[in-house]
Amino acid sequence: MIQTPYLLFLGDAPDMLAAKVAIGIRDWRPENALGQFRLPGCGADLGLADMTLAEAREAGAKTLVIGVANRGGVISQEWKKVLVAALEEGFDLASGLHNLLRDEPDLVAVAEATGRALHDVRVPEVAYPIANGVKRSGKRCLAVGTDCSVGKMYTAMAMEREMQARGMAATFRATGQTGILITGDGVPLDAVVADFMAGSIEWLTPDNTAEHWDLIEGQGSLFHVSYSGVTLALIHGGQPDALILCHEPTRAHMRGLPGYPLPGLERLRDTALPLARVANPDCRVVGISVNTQAMAEQEARDYLAGLEQRMALPATDPYRFGAGKLAEALATL
Amino acid sequence: MIQTPYLLFLGDAPDMLAAKVAIGIRDWRPENALGQFRLPGCGADLGLADMTLAEAREAGAKTLVIGVANRGGVISQEWKKVLVAALEEGFDLASGLHNLLRDEPDLVAVAEATGRALHDVRVPEVAYPIANGVKRSGKRCLAVGTDCSVGKMYTAMAMEREMQARGMAATFRATGQTGILITGDGVPLDAVVADFMAGSIEWLTPDNTAEHWDLIEGQGSLFHVSYSGVTLALIHGGQPDALILCHEPTRAHMRGLPGYPLPGLERLRDTALPLARVANPDCRVVGISVNTQAMAEQEARDYLAGLEQRMALPATDPYRFGAGKLAEALATL
Repeated sequence: MIQTPYLLFLGDAPDMLAAKVAIGIRDWRPENALGQFRLPGCGADLGLADMTLAEAREAGAKTLVIGVANRGGVISQEWKKVLVAALEEGFDLASGLHNLLRDEPDLVAVAEATGRALHDVRVPEVAYPIANGVKRSGKRCLAVGTDCSVGKMYTAMAMEREMQARGMAATFRATGQTGILITGDGVPLDAVVADFMAGSIEWLTPDNTAEHWDLIEGQGSLFHVSYSGVTLALIHGGQPDALILCHEPTRAHMRGLPGYPLPGLERLRDTALPLARVANPDCRVVGISVNTQAMAEQEARDYLAGLEQRMALPATDPYRFGAGKLAEALATL
Repeated sequence: MIQTPYLLFLGDAPDMLAAKVAIGIRDWRPENALGQFRLPGCGADLGLADMTLAEAREAGAKTLVIGVANRGGVISQEWKKVLVAALEEGFDLASGLHNLLRDEPDLVAVAEATGRALHDVRVPEVAYPIANGVKRSGKRCLAVGTDCSVGKMYTAMAMEREMQARGMAATFRATGQTGILITGDGVPLDAVVADFMAGSIEWLTPDNTAEHWDLIEGQGSLFHVSYSGVTLALIHGGQPDALILCHEPTRAHMRGLPGYPLPGLERLRDTALPLARVANPDCRVVGISVNTQAMAEQEARDYLAGLEQRMALPATDPYRFGAGKLAEALATL
């Protein structure tokens, strides 16, 4: 569990694209984003207060989060100076970089000397159990996609916000690096050892009150041959009561797999639902979330209306048109 | 890759049940099983020559394989004496024990001093790639089960032997500890990190000659919520041309999951085949392998005959009645 709130380290990010993680934190957990720390030449700006380390500590920040991708996979000397100073100032560090904080001997030494924590969210920090399949109390919703990177995390985040605004009890449960950094907790599922995948999701979504919804971040796709096993572990470990189908309608082939066509939404429904019912016989498909960014607005509205008629399910683009329909669908369960 | 042939270490195994791995090696790779090494009080006997370490080296043995489970999860001092002496004598060591050889400082020190290898087959020794889904040459067969532990490894082993006896090119590909120790090579799939599961199976079953069959050892079940993700990674990484359905008809519930009923063979077929066709549109279900050990012989024969009629597929118990029907089914593809 990463201590919040955060100071967001943008380093020398050339542009906003490189600051994707920091943007996610600002957008989805603004209460965690106290300020930003930028190096000379930084081309990204979150519109947050620029703070020195001392100012951010004074304001209550607990962790310096590396909210930016590094160049060439190396933590540069310019970055190191700030990271070491942050540890000395009393910050923990959190990172989703491929090259781990714990593999940098100087950071490890200073963290030990100062009693601070280094969080590499790509690496599991918990010994997860093997899944036992026992039915848990409370309700769970999982977004499943026709492909990877079709908006599953965004959908769950938007649903959490919408449901909380309506007074529903809802918690986003992160299963990837970005989600973990945004919320401060979760399971880095793609880095979990095979035997413990489903168990890690049982651990992530424990017993809860009857009306509470866990909104589990989806990963991969049952139709993506590189990652489908991760997806099925999520479906069986999560024992969802509700599935949301996610789709990006303009993609020519599965992400990174030329020659692999995307399935249709009907095929996703007919594949995912029977598998989900192995773990939860009451599971239902309750809605559709479409990433319509490649469509003009009227085209997107027409597409969604057509989908609703074709599949007899509420359909929305939660980024463009809000997650209200999906929250309503869960409220009826 | 573990060097063969082996001297099989039975230690102080109380009975034959504890020597399951050694029995598997003797039965499926008799050419690898030069002899056995037993401690006083050993209650297991493979019917192989009892050899001293020196005698086994003289006969050509390269690796001492721990073919037995240890008591209490600890490598005892009695075992240690033999293992250290074996390293000194020039043997590599191979083990599928939970407590790793590499976690025993004395074994590590002696192995380094003598230049010998310690093989813990529970732990991957290869940096597997992420699966790329590219179609590979040669043919592949995968056994999928209604549950875990229904005879998938045995089925693939029996098919390999039968096919080779008929002059067909066939290679068993191990995906679990026992299979790896038997054959000396393979992927310990349950210990592979999630993102690399399917890629490890692509690595295990590379391009081959057009008529060659890889017989991939199955793991878990699409219907077993603890391990289903592993099974789907096998299906998508293996891109099988042929599926064999495996079943144990007398089981009351899924292994280790009270309250989870077993699916029928039709449901297994209708779930596994569409998923397999994502990676290989030409995949077919070609036969059924049943573990009939809980049935009398005539009952078993009647059951198999009934299955053949019901499902229009060849059905056999390869242990009891041979794998001929399954080999014939592959020969027609």
